[in-house]
Formats: sequence, structure tokens, C-alpha cells
Amino acid sequence: MIKTDILIIGAGPTGLFTVFEAGLLQLKCHLIDALPQPGGQCAEIYPKKPIYDIPAFPEVLAGDLVDNLMEQIKAFQPGFTLGERADTIEKQDDGSFIVTTNKGTQHQAPVVAIAGGLGSFEPRKPALENLAHFEDNGIAYMIKDPEVYRDKRVVIAGGGDSALDWSIFLTDVAAEVTLIHRRNEFRGALDSVEKVQHLKDLGKINLITPAEVTGLLGDDSLSGVRVKKTGEDEAFDLECDSFIPLFGLSPKLGPIADWGLEIEKNAIKVNNALDYQTNIPGIYAIGDVNTYPGKLKLILCGFHEATLMCQSAYQRIHPDKRYVMKYTTVGGVTGFDGSKKEAPKAVVKAID
Amino acid sequence: MIKTDILIIGAGPTGLFTVFEAGLLQLKCHLIDALPQPGGQCAEIYPKKPIYDIPAFPEVLAGDLVDNLMEQIKAFQPGFTLGERADTIEKQDDGSFIVTTNKGTQHQAPVVAIAGGLGSFEPRKPALENLAHFEDNGIAYMIKDPEVYRDKRVVIAGGGDSALDWSIFLTDVAAEVTLIHRRNEFRGALDSVEKVQHLKDLGKINLITPAEVTGLLGDDSLSGVRVKKTGEDEAFDLECDSFIPLFGLSPKLGPIADWGLEIEKNAIKVNNALDYQTNIPGIYAIGDVNTYPGKLKLILCGFHEATLMCQSAYQRIHPDKRYVMKYTTVGGVTGFDGSKKEAPKAVVKAID
Repeated sequence: MIKTDILIIGAGPTGLFTVFEAGLLQLKCHLIDALPQPGGQCAEIYPKKPIYDIPAFPEVLAGDLVDNLMEQIKAFQPGFTLGERADTIEKQDDGSFIVTTNKGTQHQAPVVAIAGGLGSFEPRKPALENLAHFEDNGIAYMIKDPEVYRDKRVVIAGGGDSALDWSIFLTDVAAEVTLIHRRNEFRGALDSVEKVQHLKDLGKINLITPAEVTGLLGDDSLSGVRVKKTGEDEAFDLECDSFIPLFGLSPKLGPIADWGLEIEKNAIKVNNALDYQTNIPGIYAIGDVNTYPGKLKLILCGFHEATLMCQSAYQRIHPDKRYVMKYTTVGGVTGFDGSKKEAPKAVVKAID
Repeated sequence: MIKTDILIIGAGPTGLFTVFEAGLLQLKCHLIDALPQPGGQCAEIYPKKPIYDIPAFPEVLAGDLVDNLMEQIKAFQPGFTLGERADTIEKQDDGSFIVTTNKGTQHQAPVVAIAGGLGSFEPRKPALENLAHFEDNGIAYMIKDPEVYRDKRVVIAGGGDSALDWSIFLTDVAAEVTLIHRRNEFRGALDSVEKVQHLKDLGKINLITPAEVTGLLGDDSLSGVRVKKTGEDEAFDLECDSFIPLFGLSPKLGPIADWGLEIEKNAIKVNNALDYQTNIPGIYAIGDVNTYPGKLKLILCGFHEATLMCQSAYQRIHPDKRYVMKYTTVGGVTGFDGSKKEAPKAVVKAID
């Protein structure tokens, strides 16, 4: 059982910044996210795209925003349960909650902050027989650890940025990379399309287009895929160790929708006049996942909501204590790792 | 008469960011501030101090935060009335407001956003006879334009960072710089104290300590100050063109307190459940100047409040239009100066 002060569901920008504000209040955080890395959409969907409306950043790449937040919260040593989806929540007699993921990992905390964005990102799956049988036995929809594919024969399907970028990346890792797409045209950054063309010309990417995977081969684990080129009568079999369909991710509120929270238009209603708490005391919802009159789904709003929420969480966890806010410029930041950042002190010194 | 869409009172971080969010909605802004430059406290009081709790900035100097915001809003061409204090407000028949400063500058807008921080910064003044007579005739409490002191004989009084830093700066501009302080010890950045010591040793700063200015000389304009060293019986006269007492600034809500707004604990009450509007429709209050249940006086909260406020201002200004929010990552940012920033477009391109 993982125990913490604030259990954060969703490791996007709002969830990450919560760790910082909680840390200033000496509260520890643990984050659960269905994606394999922190950063939410910013890391998974558009890491290389610029955002222009983060305050005091005239322009910042989404991936850099996440890196900055990770750096900012480092001293508060957050825990992470990644690649797992928060599935169930149970209130305990002591008022705390136990949240269990789809892989059975259990977490306990007196406060739960849902920072789930648009929901957990679920992969779009191809309609193939025996698909479920090979999941985690040769088929994956997200690449959590590229090393898994070292010296393996990998087939990637898809025509967007993920398919392009992972094909490029895996040429340095895998024994063979095959990229299959139902069109000749790919949609992505010009640079990525050109790199795939180049690697194909060098023989490092085996490109099969226009074509589709129409079947899966193997007994216990995947041994190959059946491929049919458009306009040809016969399909052919291609041996491989891994098949990775990268057809995009679509967000689903998912199991959270069944936690007894008030839901409106696929978002969780919160008390925005006070502390972004939901209808269940002790469960808060912050960032894009919540809704209230005038709500804007902007990252900068999530930062504010996280900050006010942490103050309320503090009162819930320490009902007898009174927290007096200190500006970081005045009081500095003391990490759980013993680190201390603070403004240079003024000196009092005679001039003679 | 200066006319604009949103008249912002206070050019601190919250006021500045309002220009950006308003700009995304095609609304123009003009800012009034009592300080001689934009940035509020961050620029005037602690530009060289690090802030640690701006989201995605593990550390940022307050002055750099202001520079970044100025860069971010540049394309939306805000107007500024600086070094003037917003004194009176009058509602017009058409629902707009006219705000007049202490220098008589008039501004008209359908929406007023008070982002006044802790109030307008008023200098602490020495208790000297005829002080008011020489104000703007040889005496200043803030340095708006250092060029005013070119080749002049300047006397600065004070023992803190401002007195130290301006004494250093003016050695390159003024004909003579005299620094007077009632103690031998100065309080400031070590670096500044050491620089003043060095410039004093070089004869570039005339240091008189422990001492006080006890009188002002001159008829229409200042011609000198009377100085008394501690422990000595006789005062002496020192000829100069300018006397600049830098005894610190203290924020006062000031005339805004008489605008008919609901005030609580020196802050303006707003409707935080919706749009940060005050009890007077069309006047909003955002950032440190406002108060509501759970309010935190943090810059990041001001950013959020400014953003939601702009949406409400848009509805007020364009009651018949419906604004559909577009993410900057998707829609880019189009400046009033014709500039356009946008994410690189994806290409659709065949690989063969």
C-alpha cells in the first residue's frame, strides 16, 4: 500500500504543480497516470508544439513546460504510479481513501486530487481477431520503455507523428523496423516525414504502403502479422516480435465517472467559490477535468486551482494547525530532500 | 482623452498579463500606474530577488518575470500612463467610465480592471520645512528618468538598496553624487554595499555618515540642503541641484478606497464564483488588490483571475457576440501589430 498526503490522479501540468504547492505546505504527494510518463497531453500528444498563453512564457514547447515543472517539484520528491489507470476508490472509516489501479496497485491518502485532464488516454485499437490475447504478449499501444524492443523485429502501424517518430527512434534500438500505413501520405512534422523517407532510402525502415495489418499470428505470444497491400489480392505474412498500432489516443473520463461524483458535460463539478472540492468531501478536482460557471480549460487556471486546493487540503489534514503563508521570495523553498533555495540575504555593513 | 477597451489600474504582473488575455479576445488595454515603470513591486521593490512559485519557473528574478510579461504582451500594443495615480472615476451615461489621474490625464473605457496590488506606492517623506514647495522643483522621491540628473549635483538620502543602487548608477550621469545616511551601516545586497565603498574610495561618491538632512535651501527651486552630522553641534550647507530622499515606498489603497467599492481589510471584495467583478458592474478587481473566501495573494492567482475577468469583460463589451475559445497552440497568437505566432503546421506528404 502506497501512503501519501495528497493522492493526485493525473500527472499533467496541473497535477505536477500541485506537488509544488503541497510541498510548500509540507504535504507529500503521489501521482497516478495512465500514460507511461509524467506530463499528460503535453508530453504524450504535443511535446514539440509551442504554447503561447503560459504566463511569462512568450513561447514554450509543451515538453519543456513539463520538464520545467518536473525540475520545480523535484525537491518535494513526488511518487509516481505510471502506466496504470485509477479504477476504484473506497472511503475508509478513518476518512481516508484507498485508490486501486487497473493493475491492482493500491494507494491510501486523506485527500484525493483529481487532475485528470480530459480523462485517461485510451489507445484507439485496430479491429483484429485475438487482439486482446496478444496484448502485453507482443502487442502494445504505447511505448513505455524502448529498451523492450532492443534487437527485436518491430512492426509499427499508423500514419501520424507517433508512428513516424517511434519508427525513427527504434531504428537505433530494434533489429528491424517495419512501418505500415494504409495510405502513401503521412501526416506529421515535415522534419519527421523527411527523416522517415531518408531512413527508408537507407534500408533502415521497411516501409509498406498503402497496406493494413489484417491478422495476428502466433500461439502464446505474437510471432508475426498478416499484411494486405491495397489493391493486391493476396495478403502475406511478416514475422515479427512486436506489433505496435499507433492510431492515436482518445481521452475517456473512464472509471472516475462511477465514483459518485457530480458530473456535468463529462467534467466534475466543483465548488469554485472556495476550494475546488467535489460533492465528496476530501476529493477535489482541478484543471481541465473540473467544471464550474465560467470555467476555462487552460493550464494557467489549473495552476491556480491546485494552489487554492492545497490550502484546503492542509486544513483537512491538519484541522488543528493554522498555516501562515510565507512568500517564497522571503522564506525560500525547503525540499523534502534537504535542499534549500532562498534569495540572497541583505547585509548590514558599514561603509567608511 | 485616452480611449480603450479595458482600462487597467496597476501595471504589475497581473495587470500586464491581462493585456495578453484581452488581446486574445481582440480587446485593447491601457494601463495606469503610479510607479515610473511597468512591473509593480517586482520592478520597483525587488527586481533582483528570485521568486520560486511561478509555475514552470523553478526560479525567476522578479525583474525577469516582468521582462518576460512585457515581451509576451508586446504584440497587443498596450498603452501606458506611468508615474500617475488613478484618482477619480465617473460613470458615464453610456455605461463607460472616465478615470482621471492626479496629473489630470483622462481615460475612458467600458471596463475597468483594478489590478492595484497592495495599492499605489507612496514614498516615505522626510519631515522638512518647505518640502512640498520643492517637490518637482529639485526634490523627487522616485527616479523616473535618470537623464534628468545629467551633469547635476545630486544629494541622495537613505540607507537601503534604492539609495545604494541609485548612488552607484548616477555616478556615471551626475556631476556630483552625495550619499547621506543617518548610520554608518547600510542595508542591502553585499555587492551594492561593496560597490559604494569602492566608488567612495575613488572619490566618485561623497559619503556623509552618520548624518541627516535638516533643512532645504533655495527660493523657487532647490539650491542646496542643510546637513547635520550626528554628534556635531553645527550643521553645514551643501549646494546641490537635486535632493532625492529614498526612504522606501509604502503601498496605500489610496483614492480607490473612495470609489464606492466594497472594501474589506484594505482589499476590494469580488465575486470569485464567477468573474472577479466588484459590486459596481463593469469594474473588476484582480490580483493582490481583491479579496474573497480563500484568497491567496500570489502572482499565479492574479494570472487566473485576469483570464476569467477578460471573458466577462468581452461579454460586457460585446453582448451580442459569442466568443469560442481557441487554444494558442492550435490558433496561434495574432498581434495588433500584425505579427503572427503559430505552431508549425503538420504536413501531409507521401513517402515513396
